[in-house]
Parts: sequence; structure tokens; C-alpha cells
Amino acid sequence: MSIQFGPDYVRAIAPYQGGKPIAEVAREFGLDEAKIIKLASNENPLGMPESARQAMLAAMNELGRYPDSNGYELKQTITAKYGVPADWVTLGNGSNDILELAAHAFVQPGQAVIYAQYSFAVYALATQAVGGRADVVPAKNYGHDLGAMLEAVTGDTRLVFIANPNNPTGTFIAPGEIEAFLRKVPANVVVVLDEAYNEYLAPELQYDSIAWVRQYPNLLVSRTLSKAYGLAGLRIGFGIAQPGITDLLNRIRQPFNVNSMAQAAAIAALNDDAFLRRSAQINTDGYRQLTQAFIEMDLEYVPSYGNFVLFRAGSDDAAGARINLELLRRGIIVRPVGNYGMPQWLRVSIGLPEENAAFIAALKEILS
Amino acid sequence: MSIQFGPDYVRAIAPYQGGKPIAEVAREFGLDEAKIIKLASNENPLGMPESARQAMLAAMNELGRYPDSNGYELKQTITAKYGVPADWVTLGNGSNDILELAAHAFVQPGQAVIYAQYSFAVYALATQAVGGRADVVPAKNYGHDLGAMLEAVTGDTRLVFIANPNNPTGTFIAPGEIEAFLRKVPANVVVVLDEAYNEYLAPELQYDSIAWVRQYPNLLVSRTLSKAYGLAGLRIGFGIAQPGITDLLNRIRQPFNVNSMAQAAAIAALNDDAFLRRSAQINTDGYRQLTQAFIEMDLEYVPSYGNFVLFRAGSDDAAGARINLELLRRGIIVRPVGNYGMPQWLRVSIGLPEENAAFIAALKEILS
Repeated sequence: MSIQFGPDYVRAIAPYQGGKPIAEVAREFGLDEAKIIKLASNENPLGMPESARQAMLAAMNELGRYPDSNGYELKQTITAKYGVPADWVTLGNGSNDILELAAHAFVQPGQAVIYAQYSFAVYALATQAVGGRADVVPAKNYGHDLGAMLEAVTGDTRLVFIANPNNPTGTFIAPGEIEAFLRKVPANVVVVLDEAYNEYLAPELQYDSIAWVRQYPNLLVSRTLSKAYGLAGLRIGFGIAQPGITDLLNRIRQPFNVNSMAQAAAIAALNDDAFLRRSAQINTDGYRQLTQAFIEMDLEYVPSYGNFVLFRAGSDDAAGARINLELLRRGIIVRPVGNYGMPQWLRVSIGLPEENAAFIAALKEILS
Repeated sequence: MSIQFGPDYVRAIAPYQGGKPIAEVAREFGLDEAKIIKLASNENPLGMPESARQAMLAAMNELGRYPDSNGYELKQTITAKYGVPADWVTLGNGSNDILELAAHAFVQPGQAVIYAQYSFAVYALATQAVGGRADVVPAKNYGHDLGAMLEAVTGDTRLVFIANPNNPTGTFIAPGEIEAFLRKVPANVVVVLDEAYNEYLAPELQYDSIAWVRQYPNLLVSRTLSKAYGLAGLRIGFGIAQPGITDLLNRIRQPFNVNSMAQAAAIAALNDDAFLRRSAQINTDGYRQLTQAFIEMDLEYVPSYGNFVLFRAGSDDAAGARINLELLRRGIIVRPVGNYGMPQWLRVSIGLPEENAAFIAALKEILS
């Protein structure tokens, strides 16, 4: 038998399954890349904002240099936008980096992490990578049951992940529920509030999580520029927390974790309110387009507050994989969620009107 | 007392001190950014290759999409260049990522990591971040003492870091010594051979570490594109090892750890032999220029095989900090190495001829 390296808990990890890249689908199914429609990774169908492109072009001459390890200018933008001091900000290589840094900083092997059934797959991966014990709390209506999550806290609990809105189900937690949870959770338990999809919330649903950060030293809010800001390919996200948390995350983050292009583009995107409004509008329209089609087709779906919709592809446990394969053959990439324990379901990202229409047409053809 | 989060070993970490960014020095010393010369971070003075710039421009339209998590095309380039299968390659957000992944994958709290005194600071940080025990082996002539490092192996040892050439001292280990070490080290101990500066070795000093990877399942060779390839700002490096190691690193790496710009630029740079030759030539010339000046000034230096030279700024323990400050006032950024336990020394990166000349002139003025 060959020698095995590393602890059991690392060897047990099943790597993250991302949305299939367009080039890969083209290779596998013999399709023309240009005709493939990807609605698999909750990307912004508008792509990157033009303001970010211009910022990148201006920054391109300095790429032989290391990035600014402290992200001085980007943190100035974030502090201005969110009204927090620079030492409350941690920059990440995507918000995925922030989630993993939290696990590495706060959880030792054997200590416990709480998250909800059907919540973002990276919570499980980050927990496994540090040998933490995952206390997974059953979902309520496909979303978080914060009452049950509070009851799940034990003396071993070091970290709780809460996603609002949640991916892949799209559910939303009322702000009052989150605040009640923060009031009651023990002060030595770090709570990560993952708001990757926050910018897609309608104005009347927006809430002030930064005010909670000011109040609760154990709260870490994470944000990404991969979704509404359209910068998924560059990898940039950030966390906001009081210095007791931020200081530790900065001790263990890789010194040059955020590349120079991402820093430059993020400054531009965070200041580009017009792009954000366009992204939100496209999303609102596309959500209506998709959900009306699901209703017409009599397909169950989970009402979504993000830029994607989870729908039930069929009533047998092979339905998700079967319909997914048929969609792939037609050049349409969506996301199976069997790895979330939802083999009957598929998640479709909200695209441009013509992309949504092509998906709907293909699905109708498959189901007829 | 306020609540403290995280384990003691995380709270004890002193963050990495990078080279001061030009903008920061300009702010602190009231200098014109355009006149500042940075020889502090072993960056390529030629900047990024033009081939990489063109590749980035071509890839820019896809930045709203997530990067290819598996780096298919970049791995094709690496496998062609190094003659290894794609599943022997791990892509990293800089080779720093590879070093940290190795610590996370193979070391649990309390297990031991071996590295040499005066070797790269990230070995210590990566060890601390996972609560590992650092068994630091005293340097021999400012370089690695592989005999002593072998003797330092205990039943707790899980990982050994070897840098060749070493940063910040520039020392080189003869290939025969490394091979002897690999033959004798226990097969369950993972050896990371960090070759960040490999491309600066003269042709007659090049050796075939990939042949060792084929022979030793416990060897991980790491490479970066931040140095000779001129892509420091983009963050891209990689590790080559047999699947027993690579598979684990890929389980715990962040799924989108390498951004799309870095992947596109790296493919171009790895195929740009002309740029690599120019970089090596500039470095050879600059090394002669700097070391002749040190000899003239009667300053001790460590013969270097990298793109930098470590020199003794003075014979008292305040010398490094003092001379560094005087250089900063004159707009020249080098690297103090007090954090390496070498307070009398400074490390200067090899720049363009005129940059080296400006550094030499400033140093002469300060020391006269």
C-alpha cells in the first residue's frame, strides 16, 4: 500500500463542484463555444462593468510589481461606502477566501461549526479542511431555521455560517430574525453573515448589517464582487468586522491574496452605481420571465431573492441529472444540486432575456 | 477584558512584512512617486512581458465569468513544458498559495515542520497558521544545512521546506545534496522544494527536479511566475508532485484560487523564452554592477543565485534599520531583514542598470 499523506479529514474532502466552464462543455459535447449559454454559476449576465475595464487598463503597467498587500486604496473606497474604519476590513481572493479564513482562524480540529442544510457548499468544505465538526441544522422551507441553529450551539461551537440570501435555494431571512440570533448567540461564537447576493435585494428588503457589526464584536459580514458587480473572474471580496476578528484574519491571510487587477477593478465597480442598478433591473425582469415559465410548465420552484432560481426538474431522484444532461446536449449549462442532497432539483442563474428564453425553450422541449 | 477569538497560535502570528509599496513610501516621506526606485520585493525590473499583456487583453471580455477552476489550458502549457501529466499540477494564487496549501494539507496542530534559519518568512507563517511546531535548523554559511535538517527529522515531522536558491540570502544548494536528502528522508515526510528563483540560475547550474518528482512520491516542487516571468501583481504559481500529494492540495485549495487574468497571462509568459532570456541577462549584468560596488565600498555580501543581493550595511545591530531609513529618504526602497534575525543586513533586488546606479550612489553618499 502506498503511503498516505495528511490527516484523514483532509483526505475525506470531496472537492467543490463548480459550474461547468463553457470550454469544457464544448469539448465534452462537441458544441460550438459561441452558442453555449451558461446559467450555472450565478454570474452577472452583463459581464464586467466598463468602469472596471478602464481601471484595469490603467493599472496594467504595474503588474510586474506585487499587489499592495494592505489594499490601501481599495480599503479607502470600502470605508467611504460602508462607514467603517480601514482596520475593520479584510480583503479576500473572492469572499470564498473570507469564509475559509474564518474557518482557519477560529476553528481547531474537533471544534464545531454550525450551518444550515442546503446552504453554500463552501461552508462544509472550509469546515472539513480544518478538521472541524459540522453541525448541520435541517432547513425550514429550504432556508435557515435560526431558532434551531441557536439551539444547536454547544460549548464546542466556534463558528456559525449564515447566508442571506442563501445559495443555492435563494431564501431570505428577515432582518429581525438575524438580529434576534445575534442577541442570543454566545459572544465567543463567531457568526459569519454571508451576503454575497445582498445587492440583488429589492430596496425595501435592504437592511443595515454594518450597524450589527458595530454592535456585535463576534459578527463578520462578508461581501463579494463576483455577483452583482460582475467581477467573478478577478476574485475579489471582503469582510467587515471589528478589529478583534479582522486582526486575526489579516494574520493568517496570504500577504498578497488579492491581485492588483482585482483591486483596481473593485474600486471602480464599487463606485459604479449605474451598473449596479442595471444589474438589479436585468435580474428583476429575468426572475419574472423564468418564474412565469415555471408556473406555465407547472414546475415547483423556490421563491428566490438572489440572481438564480431553484426549480424541481422532476419527482424522481434521477430527474436533476437527467434534465441537466439534456440541457447540456442543447448547449445550456445550469447547476445540478445533487451534492446538496437535492437530486430532483436544478438551479438556473438569471441571464439576459434571450438567454432565459433559450433555457425555457430547451426545457419545454425536454419536458414535452 | 474583551473576548478573544481563535487559538493562541493564530493570535501569536506576526503578519508578513512585504516590501514597502511605492505609493506608501511617497505618502510617508512626501516624495514624488515617479522618482521612487523600488528594489525591495525581488520583482522583475522589466515588468510584465508584452506577450502576457496581449493575452490579458484578449481574455478581458470574460471577466464576468468565474475562472476555470481546473485551469485546463494553463495546465496543458505546464504539462507540455515540464513533461508531467495534468493531475500532477496544482495551480496556486502565487507559489505562496502552494506553500500554505502544503502546510494545511499535511500538518495538524502540534506536528512538526522543518526549515532553515534565514529561509523564506512564509515557511514560518504557514507553520504558525496551522499550529505546527517549527523546528528551525541553524544555517550554514547563510544557507541550508541539509545534513542537520535530516538529523532534525523526528516522528512528529510532517513537512520540510527547502528553498533553492534561498530568499533572502541567495544561497544555492548543490543538486547532489538535495538528492541525497530526498533519498534519506522518511517517505512519509513531505518535502517542499521551493524553486521561486530557479529561472535565474545559470544554465550550467540548472538541474532536473522534475526527475526527482517522478522518483519521490513525497516531493512537491513549487514554482512562481512572480519573479523571472514578471507577473507578481497577478498572483500565479504552481506545484508539481505525484497525485498522492496533488490530489490532497486540490481538495483543500479554494475552487477559484487562480484568477482568469493570471491564467491567461501565465500561458503566454511560460511560452515566452525570449523574455526569460532578457530577464536573466539583465539580472546577470545587474549582479555584477551591484557586487562590484559592494567590493569597492568594502561591504560584505552573500554571493547570490537569485535576483537580489544580501549585504551587510554595518557592524552594529541598528545598521540595517538606519541605512534603510536613509535610503527611503532618498526615495530608494530596499528590504530590511531584521525579522529574519539579520539586523545588520539589507537585501537589495537587482534592478535596471540606472536603478542599480541610483541605489549605489545613494548608498555611497550615506556611508561617506
